Amino acid sequence: MGEYSISKLNKVIRGSKRATYDVTSIHKILDDAFLCNIGYVYDDKAIVIPTAYGRIDDKIYIHGSLKNRMMLSLLKAGEASVSVTHLDGLVLARSAFHHSANYRSVNIFGKVNRVDDPDTKMDALKCILNHMVPGHWDNVRYPNDKEFNATLILEISIETASAKVRAEGVVDEQKDLELPIWAGIVPLKMVAEPAISDPALDKGIKIPDAVLNYVKENTY
Amino acid sequence: MGEYSISKLNKVIRGSKRATYDVTSIHKILDDAFLCNIGYVYDDKAIVIPTAYGRIDDKIYIHGSLKNRMMLSLLKAGEASVSVTHLDGLVLARSAFHHSANYRSVNIFGKVNRVDDPDTKMDALKCILNHMVPGHWDNVRYPNDKEFNATLILEISIETASAKVRAEGVVDEQKDLELPIWAGIVPLKMVAEPAISDPALDKGIKIPDAVLNYVKENTY
Repeated sequence: MGEYSISKLNKVIRGSKRATYDVTSIHKILDDAFLCNIGYVYDDKAIVIPTAYGRIDDKIYIHGSLKNRMMLSLLKAGEASVSVTHLDGLVLARSAFHHSANYRSVNIFGKVNRVDDPDTKMDALKCILNHMVPGHWDNVRYPNDKEFNATLILEISIETASAKVRAEGVVDEQKDLELPIWAGIVPLKMVAEPAISDPALDKGIKIPDAVLNYVKENTY
Repeated sequence: MGEYSISKLNKVIRGSKRATYDVTSIHKILDDAFLCNIGYVYDDKAIVIPTAYGRIDDKIYIHGSLKNRMMLSLLKAGEASVSVTHLDGLVLARSAFHHSANYRSVNIFGKVNRVDDPDTKMDALKCILNHMVPGHWDNVRYPNDKEFNATLILEISIETASAKVRAEGVVDEQKDLELPIWAGIVPLKMVAEPAISDPALDKGIKIPDAVLNYVKENTY
């Protein structure tokens, strides 16, 4: 699928040997998360808000209320920057200076458009929910007209993107290797615990396979 | 410790019943993480970068290279916005519309200053490292002059802040409670796996207590 073009906006300067612009790698990092951080400018300040998202091809979808300040600011700006980070471990070096983390991180820059076409809008909602728990859309009550009309969907078309990935052990100065100081990594991962059914639920209603599978794939 | 003042910048409009400005609660959310997302303006665009941080009283410290674009942009702007989010669970409602997540999220706005005083700078480095693994600073080789001088430390003095916390079960429409659709939550947590010693390490060097304790407290 090639690479995203490199501009001064997305070019990774610091730690550039850990950078990638590969489309497939970037899509994978995006698909492994469902929470992103959106940056928007308000009152000349950059504000960061976490929000759920979904991806279809080279488009990211986010949703919110019609009055959401972030959503309206993004729409007004016509562009958005999106950041997704997986924290994979602590890198504990011999020296304070070489402490680091293992991570997979993506930054996206794209054009923002409001989604008004009802089919595209419903597809986006489905995509966002399935991005959280694959296949769960088929189990739920779909949005009614009131809910559907109260939801603002923005489509962020990826124009440029970059990823940084650190996935290795400790890197210390050669002369520090002789020091009587411990060094190593501590892997970190996000895990799911078993689903807890709503107490108001009728006892006969079983946990759907999509949820069971999600827990199974994310269990410790 | 009171509350942060509320301005149009930090006032939570959407989901305001989940908002808090309580200083102690906000400090706790900050102390439970070590990775934040910094928003900065570059070329009139908001860019979001994940980075490690530490907190001392009402000050957040971040570090980076002297040439780091984010650090230099923050210094030039004189102000920064910082976001920290813990994802605590999926909230899977009967209706697509009421799907949500449990989370603890903080947004900070503050003045940025470069730290030049050597003692304050070393304290900030210690704070950032101990924020990752409490007490581990005492185990490592401290920065030498070259490393110390190559590190830029910024102090972000918190001026306003807000938190949003969702920590509850499914909230569905009353009329949906009768539907034969499952609903519930899936708790999520970040866990640590046992430390993996650097293969170059002398076999006689033991994993320090600070690291063992960190793993123990964050294990599944």
